[in-house]
Amino acid sequence: MLLRLRKALPPEQLQAVLELARELGYAPHFLESGKELLRLEGVGRPEHRSRFEDLVGVAAILDAGSATELHERAGRPDTVVTAGEARFGGGSVSLIAGPCAVESWPRLLEIAREVQKHGATLLRGGAWKPRTSPYSFQGMKGDGLELLRRVRAETGIGIVTEVLDPRDVEAVGAVADMFQIGARSMQNSALLIEVGRYGKPVLLKRSFSATVRELLMAAEFVLAQGNRQVILCERGVRGFDPTTRNILDVGAVAHLKRATHLPVIVDPSHAAGRSDLVRPLARAGIAAGADGLIVEVHPDPSEVHSDGSQAVLPHTFGEIAADTRVIAALDRRRVVEPSLAPAER
Amino acid sequence: MLLRLRKALPPEQLQAVLELARELGYAPHFLESGKELLRLEGVGRPEHRSRFEDLVGVAAILDAGSATELHERAGRPDTVVTAGEARFGGGSVSLIAGPCAVESWPRLLEIAREVQKHGATLLRGGAWKPRTSPYSFQGMKGDGLELLRRVRAETGIGIVTEVLDPRDVEAVGAVADMFQIGARSMQNSALLIEVGRYGKPVLLKRSFSATVRELLMAAEFVLAQGNRQVILCERGVRGFDPTTRNILDVGAVAHLKRATHLPVIVDPSHAAGRSDLVRPLARAGIAAGADGLIVEVHPDPSEVHSDGSQAVLPHTFGEIAADTRVIAALDRRRVVEPSLAPAER
Amino acid sequence: MLLRLRKALPPEQLQAVLELARELGYAPHFLESGKELLRLEGVGRPEHRSRFEDLVGVAAILDAGSATELHERAGRPDTVVTAGEARFGGGSVSLIAGPCAVESWPRLLEIAREVQKHGATLLRGGAWKPRTSPYSFQGMKGDGLELLRRVRAETGIGIVTEVLDPRDVEAVGAVADMFQIGARSMQNSALLIEVGRYGKPVLLKRSFSATVRELLMAAEFVLAQGNRQVILCERGVRGFDPTTRNILDVGAVAHLKRATHLPVIVDPSHAAGRSDLVRPLARAGIAAGADGLIVEVHPDPSEVHSDGSQAVLPHTFGEIAADTRVIAALDRRRVVEPSLAPAER
Amino acid sequence: MLLRLRKALPPEQLQAVLELARELGYAPHFLESGKELLRLEGVGRPEHRSRFEDLVGVAAILDAGSATELHERAGRPDTVVTAGEARFGGGSVSLIAGPCAVESWPRLLEIAREVQKHGATLLRGGAWKPRTSPYSFQGMKGDGLELLRRVRAETGIGIVTEVLDPRDVEAVGAVADMFQIGARSMQNSALLIEVGRYGKPVLLKRSFSATVRELLMAAEFVLAQGNRQVILCERGVRGFDPTTRNILDVGAVAHLKRATHLPVIVDPSHAAGRSDLVRPLARAGIAAGADGLIVEVHPDPSEVHSDGSQAVLPHTFGEIAADTRVIAALDRRRVVEPSLAPAER
Repeated sequence: MLLRLRKALPPEQLQAVLELARELGYAPHFLESGKELLRLEGVGRPEHRSRFEDLVGVAAILDAGSATELHERAGRPDTVVTAGEARFGGGSVSLIAGPCAVESWPRLLEIAREVQKHGATLLRGGAWKPRTSPYSFQGMKGDGLELLRRVRAETGIGIVTEVLDPRDVEAVGAVADMFQIGARSMQNSALLIEVGRYGKPVLLKRSFSATVRELLMAAEFVLAQGNRQVILCERGVRGFDPTTRNILDVGAVAHLKRATHLPVIVDPSHAAGRSDLVRPLARAGIAAGADGLIVEVHPDPSEVHSDGSQAVLPHTFGEIAADTRVIAALDRRRVVEPSLAPAER
Repeated sequence: MLLRLRKALPPEQLQAVLELARELGYAPHFLESGKELLRLEGVGRPEHRSRFEDLVGVAAILDAGSATELHERAGRPDTVVTAGEARFGGGSVSLIAGPCAVESWPRLLEIAREVQKHGATLLRGGAWKPRTSPYSFQGMKGDGLELLRRVRAETGIGIVTEVLDPRDVEAVGAVADMFQIGARSMQNSALLIEVGRYGKPVLLKRSFSATVRELLMAAEFVLAQGNRQVILCERGVRGFDPTTRNILDVGAVAHLKRATHLPVIVDPSHAAGRSDLVRPLARAGIAAGADGLIVEVHPDPSEVHSDGSQAVLPHTFGEIAADTRVIAALDRRRVVEPSLAPAER
Repeated sequence: MLLRLRKALPPEQLQAVLELARELGYAPHFLESGKELLRLEGVGRPEHRSRFEDLVGVAAILDAGSATELHERAGRPDTVVTAGEARFGGGSVSLIAGPCAVESWPRLLEIAREVQKHGATLLRGGAWKPRTSPYSFQGMKGDGLELLRRVRAETGIGIVTEVLDPRDVEAVGAVADMFQIGARSMQNSALLIEVGRYGKPVLLKRSFSATVRELLMAAEFVLAQGNRQVILCERGVRGFDPTTRNILDVGAVAHLKRATHLPVIVDPSHAAGRSDLVRPLARAGIAAGADGLIVEVHPDPSEVHSDGSQAVLPHTFGEIAADTRVIAALDRRRVVEPSLAPAER
Repeated sequence: MLLRLRKALPPEQLQAVLELARELGYAPHFLESGKELLRLEGVGRPEHRSRFEDLVGVAAILDAGSATELHERAGRPDTVVTAGEARFGGGSVSLIAGPCAVESWPRLLEIAREVQKHGATLLRGGAWKPRTSPYSFQGMKGDGLELLRRVRAETGIGIVTEVLDPRDVEAVGAVADMFQIGARSMQNSALLIEVGRYGKPVLLKRSFSATVRELLMAAEFVLAQGNRQVILCERGVRGFDPTTRNILDVGAVAHLKRATHLPVIVDPSHAAGRSDLVRPLARAGIAAGADGLIVEVHPDPSEVHSDGSQAVLPHTFGEIAADTRVIAALDRRRVVEPSLAPAER
């Protein structure tokens, strides 16, 4: 590891750095008389970088050397995350679709069948909804979970649903094929640790104001529990222009594919905030290298409780799926298709 | 209330708006033939604005009329929040100071006595620390709480400490005079509801990327539980320039003093991210109208586990307190001074 | 037009609004007794919206009615901008490529031939370079223009080059097929007016912190001079994360294709700031609907004076062109190919 | 100087770094075998840092050593900028006030007298106005300059006025005591060079999206022409929250006072964008260490052509001046008062 220390470090701070280095098994030596550049020789471990970053005297870690964190690419092949019939990473692209919130049994069943028919292998749908206002609809909660369980049994589609509270992890885990951690919960470490321990795949959405490093460290909270089935999801960052709700950070998608072995998907619906921009953003995400999409779909956007104006019709989702097949093929990637009952093909 | 509906609304969406209006007891009538501007006549309630905002067909609420939310100024006098000897709002300014994290009994006692001597009526100090990395020090947890309980008993200073997990609210509430909700937890609604129910004062920090509206709605989650003792804290927003860690949004402080009756304080330490800028930012916050400050203080910044480079010395905190007395007096506001044992004055 | 006035407007401000309305030939009438919503009946003109927005008493223009600005889509077909062999808009996609700055005759000729061979119809290359520091290379200026003139004569490729100073418009216009207005000059109205008057096509780059509305109004400065050959270029907006230099705002691209009839292209090189992300961002831009690309290409990035780390090799540019043909075909758009001498095919 | 080179640098890029080092008179030597850290020994000059930053192979300049740029504090005392009776820096605080735009002779004279009476030593007022829309009022131009010349002759107040076009520098310089470079022109290098050559003091406003480094390098363009009379002005940066128009970056003010010897002032009017927040932001700016203020003042905000809603009444400006005297005194700084004719005191 190569550290740059702060200039003119007081002796106690310098001592603290050298002690930690020795405690972790490194041989430290300065590269120059100014004592700013410290080379640590030895075998790194995932947690070492953070340990040094926490010290007041360390200005920057210029080179982490062999202290690679669990999420780091570092020459590793793609992690492939599987849930239901879906596969993300390693050349496989999968589509997740569904309503913003679970609303009623007939609607849920209808949407599940529609999105499955058009290419979705996983159904999204919130039983608990994170809301800005305490007076907004907060989701059907346990009743919503029960509907998700039924729709899975009926159609075979896998379930992705959000968990907001560490006390609900058990109940959600009993139904979902994949936990969704929403953007507002990205730094809720208590929740990350619980889903990490539970062991099912985790879809981790980037907070609209998180740096790429912060997103990766949130993933590291899950990975450090021994759960390696983590998917990162870019869903737009907050910008200064009210024209679109968020800015889909396609550069972060492209960067993440190089920086980590974890799969990366894109949520064009929340990035756009309006239905007419969902298809172009979905295409842009796949073109930038995303391993999948998560799309809000609703057959009648007028009756939606929340975020309705960004849901697309099943037909539009079908067009997005078709675009995805073409664009993914540019890199010889393949969209995983759901296995439908013969009658539904 | 005056609503602007989306243009060319489908009949079902229009129907949904009118039905909700009648359900909530309003008489709706359109102002013009285009059916975009809808006036609702009737008596508003705090939750109505959010209910209409959730509808897909509503483009904007041009005037909330009498549907004022609980946080709104709407002609109300300042809410005064009290905890220990501290008073915030209504012309009273109070100072909170202390270490980033609780580390050891001698240090904690020393800091508590120092900051009390210089004018702090509340001691801050984290037993649980929200961290970006799973490998960083996460706080002394229960042992830290116990030290806080002891230092309160020994010195009489009130305690503000962060709670991160709804499952810890009982334990923290048994010790703290005021809950701190950190910036990363601002939209953790499960946590907001629990501290709202517990009933002790809540210091709610603005997320570094929350709009003022989002901050106020987070406060509304607490207020809606019947707990009116909420203080808002501006601690810097995330910007594009790495020169300072965050941008202290003094305009938001000035705006909040007009928009809400709740007290507003400033955290210059997290905004600055470096100790040499803490004093000017503290002064700027009070000058913009803040009802108090929360400042990181440590007698030996070199030994700090986290965020050490932003802690100021007790002596500098004394200068900040002195500045605060002068600037607050411009508006005839008064700094609340701790009652010290005669020997300590 | 439908205006929302500020609440409780002083009589003079109200008078000012009504007088302007009558002066411009509108019949004003209020929709309600509160005098906040003012309907103006009459025939709008492009400049009217801004005239009302300038008034202190006008809070918002809820509906611009027939006062459409020159850039507005308003049902108009795509404007097709042509320069050399390039065509942008109306289903035609064109590629611009070349070095950041003009450096030497052999290099320029080599690059022009390479990019033309791979599909570029226009060569980019700066004779004047906008720089952050006064000590950085500011371009070859007049000598660079002369090289551009020669390379055009030699290869037939069209020239796009930046003009920074209104006093240089004549000299640049004598050589270039298209003026480039750089992101830092987007609000340099003196310069916009001069290139508008000159009459050649204008490539207008979005400032890294301009809203979509500001970009469109910058275009309106050119359009209002009678010059309708304007291309908008999205090149990334400034965000909070240092991971990538800018965030390519693909949502703005998709929105612009709906909001204006002007062509929109993407600059993946400046958005990425590093060469390994240029290709994915180029693909994302075309997938979002862009009518073209402008890409930095250099056969030997190590010798580049400025921004070298974002230039791609000619070979990579060829891959980008190939991707573009596939993605554009999803919407039945076609890439305009340069007519090469038989020997070069 | 201490440079960090990019990893695994191609030989040509490495060669380019070493050649430039020798050309500039440095002795280069690597600190370690990895050839990433290069120490340059020799006497630095202001332009050297930028020269190295321009090279592709240089990842960062870890220490600029003696290559200090002209704006850098580097132990230098405050530069004191004087214009008319105003003095900025070195413990002197001065107030600039006036209308957004020059509108008419009686108004201008009235405002000049009012602001002078309340403590302004300089009058602001635009003859040319930078506007977002081509259809908005662009200022009285030459006629406005003539009114500024007359009001200076009549009242003795110094004049600060904006110049937008390098072709107008001579005309503006003949009237103004200080050039204003507006936020949108901050990176207009042609303009910066012209005002640098002209030699009168320059008030340089920070672009709403410029980093502190970019602002300082814009100042360096002026300084490098031999003109050392430059004042930096913080006027708010663009954020994500529409509540206030911009975010006044008080941390940047505090940082700049440490990083440069140039005076720094604050524009609370443009930061706030609404008149009720101007006074608290003015106070915050002075409290953070600003050497002065520039405030929009108008006796009748209802008749203002542009930005009217942010102008304060002369009476409020008087309160701001009074606040400034108290807060500046905290640091033993003194507000420079205008010398009035006896009748006007």
